Amino acid sequence: MLLYNSMVSGNCYKVRLLLAHLGIDYERRELDVVDRSDRPDVLGGLNPDLRVPTLVLDDGRPLAESGAILWYFGEGTRFVPADRYDRAKVLQWMFFEQYTHEPAIAVARFLLAYSGEPEKYASTIESRQRSGTKALEAMETHLAAAGSHIVGTSITLADIVLYAYTHVTHEGGFDLEPYPALRAWLERVAGEPGHVPIDA
Amino acid sequence: MLLYNSMVSGNCYKVRLLLAHLGIDYERRELDVVDRSDRPDVLGGLNPDLRVPTLVLDDGRPLAESGAILWYFGEGTRFVPADRYDRAKVLQWMFFEQYTHEPAIAVARFLLAYSGEPEKYASTIESRQRSGTKALEAMETHLAAAGSHIVGTSITLADIVLYAYTHVTHEGGFDLEPYPALRAWLERVAGEPGHVPIDA
Repeated sequence: MLLYNSMVSGNCYKVRLLLAHLGIDYERRELDVVDRSDRPDVLGGLNPDLRVPTLVLDDGRPLAESGAILWYFGEGTRFVPADRYDRAKVLQWMFFEQYTHEPAIAVARFLLAYSGEPEKYASTIESRQRSGTKALEAMETHLAAAGSHIVGTSITLADIVLYAYTHVTHEGGFDLEPYPALRAWLERVAGEPGHVPIDA
Repeated sequence: MLLYNSMVSGNCYKVRLLLAHLGIDYERRELDVVDRSDRPDVLGGLNPDLRVPTLVLDDGRPLAESGAILWYFGEGTRFVPADRYDRAKVLQWMFFEQYTHEPAIAVARFLLAYSGEPEKYASTIESRQRSGTKALEAMETHLAAAGSHIVGTSITLADIVLYAYTHVTHEGGFDLEPYPALRAWLERVAGEPGHVPIDA
């Protein structure tokens, strides 16, 4: 199994983290996230959106979008709840992460820490930080009222996807000090047996 | 069952279209998509992101994010494939729609046709039209090579979600003339028995 990967991409980290938890082996091929000129040659035919992560299964069939890859491997394990409503709530937070959280928090982080020209993107960074702060506030409100995890009382795909970019928010200029429930949850996810860091 | 709805929102239309196909009854409460000042009062406690669609099940439990609502009702029906890989491919296109397609195509449409001040947003509209065109090209390439539907040869949630905003792209200033496979697919989805239009 081959993962087209980027070590700095939180979307790729989600896949690496779940596969580590599940003890599934795979190979990696690293793609550049700044110079994307080789993407059509490398990912054309595998992923219509030319993004990483893109996975190629052992039988050659490709799978793209971190959320879909996670679901493929998560179904039937403790990372996808058996209850129908809880399963939908996990997807609710996975779609929240991709629609609201990631475009703000991951993009602010990328432009500030990895683009190589943060000055050029100053106003975009500022607007993404404003949206990102709202996403963090929504998470804090939920976690302060919820159980120990995003959905229920044990780790699911919802925790995996939200952990990925939330735990590196400082690289996007965010301060987590105002969010005690969120900080406790980050420690809980990182303390899960089998956890691996983003640079592993 | 109560759906917090907007008649112009494609995300709400996805839910209405699936529930119509499945013959499931529900009540609607219409929310304004321009003046959102009542959102914290109405949706606070139901949806951390304060967006529509938000659904309240008969037992009072809330569910948010169109993709999660669709999955909740789609599982076990012909709209979610029984095969594990096909199921993941449906989610791949659902995440593609929410991450890449909707933020370009739906936002261009909203700013141009519904915001009431398209001149103010001219440069945003133009950049979203450029991103939206890439998303339409990715769909055309896929549909020209694929079977009759986004995943496999019958309608799934992937068709429902991509139909919703693609069939009203003209309101966002897009021209579908260059995309014959996409136009044939739109007609196929609209011709499905049980189909309802966006204003139904």
